[in-house]
Amino acid sequence: MITYRDIELAHDRISNYIHRTPVLTSQTLNLESSSKLYFKCENFQKTGSFKIRGATNAILQLNKKQLKNGIITTSSGNHGAAVSYSAKNMGISACVIMPKNTTPNKIENVKRYGGEIVFCEPNISSREETLYQMVKKSGASIIHPYNDHKIITGQGTAAKELIEEVKDLDSIICPVSGGGLLSGTILTAKALNPNLKIYGAEPENADDTYRSLINKKIMSNETTDTIADGLRAQVGTLTFPIIQEHVEEILLVSEKMIIDSMYVIWQRLKIIIEPSCSIVFAALLLNSKKFENERVGLILTGGNYDLNKIPWQN
Amino acid sequence: MITYRDIELAHDRISNYIHRTPVLTSQTLNLESSSKLYFKCENFQKTGSFKIRGATNAILQLNKKQLKNGIITTSSGNHGAAVSYSAKNMGISACVIMPKNTTPNKIENVKRYGGEIVFCEPNISSREETLYQMVKKSGASIIHPYNDHKIITGQGTAAKELIEEVKDLDSIICPVSGGGLLSGTILTAKALNPNLKIYGAEPENADDTYRSLINKKIMSNETTDTIADGLRAQVGTLTFPIIQEHVEEILLVSEKMIIDSMYVIWQRLKIIIEPSCSIVFAALLLNSKKFENERVGLILTGGNYDLNKIPWQN
Repeated sequence: MITYRDIELAHDRISNYIHRTPVLTSQTLNLESSSKLYFKCENFQKTGSFKIRGATNAILQLNKKQLKNGIITTSSGNHGAAVSYSAKNMGISACVIMPKNTTPNKIENVKRYGGEIVFCEPNISSREETLYQMVKKSGASIIHPYNDHKIITGQGTAAKELIEEVKDLDSIICPVSGGGLLSGTILTAKALNPNLKIYGAEPENADDTYRSLINKKIMSNETTDTIADGLRAQVGTLTFPIIQEHVEEILLVSEKMIIDSMYVIWQRLKIIIEPSCSIVFAALLLNSKKFENERVGLILTGGNYDLNKIPWQN
Repeated sequence: MITYRDIELAHDRISNYIHRTPVLTSQTLNLESSSKLYFKCENFQKTGSFKIRGATNAILQLNKKQLKNGIITTSSGNHGAAVSYSAKNMGISACVIMPKNTTPNKIENVKRYGGEIVFCEPNISSREETLYQMVKKSGASIIHPYNDHKIITGQGTAAKELIEEVKDLDSIICPVSGGGLLSGTILTAKALNPNLKIYGAEPENADDTYRSLINKKIMSNETTDTIADGLRAQVGTLTFPIIQEHVEEILLVSEKMIIDSMYVIWQRLKIIIEPSCSIVFAALLLNSKKFENERVGLILTGGNYDLNKIPWQN
């Protein structure tokens, strides 16, 4: 059971290792959406995404013996980069297990931060077997991307900063994938203001959390065919109950709207964000009546997008 | 003769109408460039560029009768948008004279801020004749894009903020076109710290200021064939003498380096900037020995780039 005190302690623990990221506003986007929008810019976070919050919180709680054996994870995306960066900063080794078909820019990202890469076949059994063998060999501690209380509390610190900076928010929208950020956001928000409504935004093409809520049990993704490559995971056993109890609603977004909203954010806010978080702005636009005249926080989770794959230009 | 007091007064005058833009840093870019870099982000400025500083400073000094007749300019780029926005804010009319072949995104930018557009033929004589006729008809005040003391002092406020925020800068690099920003930066910097070196960055393909310094008189551009569309103007009669007296050097940059450096800034700082200012980062990289171990301010002047024309993706 996570309490708000755990999130405060996490924030104290990690604050020297992360940026307190800015909150951006736009008069014209406010006018056009008939809401007051507050964009929490985790794309400016160290390693380019919020993932450093949870990873750092988990790593800082390892004991000396665990640190000596290093850490390991299976995420090839933003979590992999965050784990590599944190490990390097603490002078310990990080191993990131990646499928052989991982895209070059993600490999480069992990390498830049000093992570050791071990390739596996692109399927779950090979990944789990490789993880098992590596842990058996090195004794490294597994840093899960979301299904871990230390990760959830770490990710909750983004919403803590947002709520501290922007008074009287009515709603917060954040992306949902494995649910670490959404559940951390929920626990933070409900502790600080029980009336604050928390929405998750999820791709139509990877809608496991949406269907899990309907079915009242964790459902698998039927497809993960979305440009929002950070949102392809399945909601976790620890994160789902928190989401199930408190989330206002999961808002589904089409691929076209994910891309269109990314274009608008790039053009108008002059910032690079990933499709995995433009989805929150898309969810707002698609549900503008719901958010009319509200003060809405939007968590922009990351900016690690491959600039050679601009989706609106062929 | 502009004094630093004029720049202070300009700053007081406009500060309620502009953003105090953030200064970004990047550990990894510092490491890779062997310098400490401070990016002054005028891409986050109102209307997406620093041009609002000078335009606002000039408009706020018009008297009642002048305000009633409205304002007029011939710039179709960032200055045109800034003039339109300022006029709208003050409840006066703005007219922007544009060549018929102006690109749609620039037309849209001026329209968004409420400027009235008058088209002319795409040549200087038609532009000047249209301006003359319009002024004769309306009595509107001309807000020049750079060759005006009020514009120069307004643009100097960007460097003032940068120098106030970042102590002990060794150098500042800013783009040069008509020279409003560069001369304003020079006057500010030399008043606050005579040892601070000020560099201009200019496209090889529009190198009038570079050649003007060599020839000790204002030279015309032989070509303006550069992706840095904000840097195609010719240095002004008021700005050139200031530049000539104080600038450390004009650093020339190829088209390829302008584009490559834009890619790096987008990818690493997660911000959208125009090629007209990625040129300052390119100038630093091309002259890395010169700036080694220095604390360098880089003025990122704007973020109004047409996202449908990403130059590295075909």
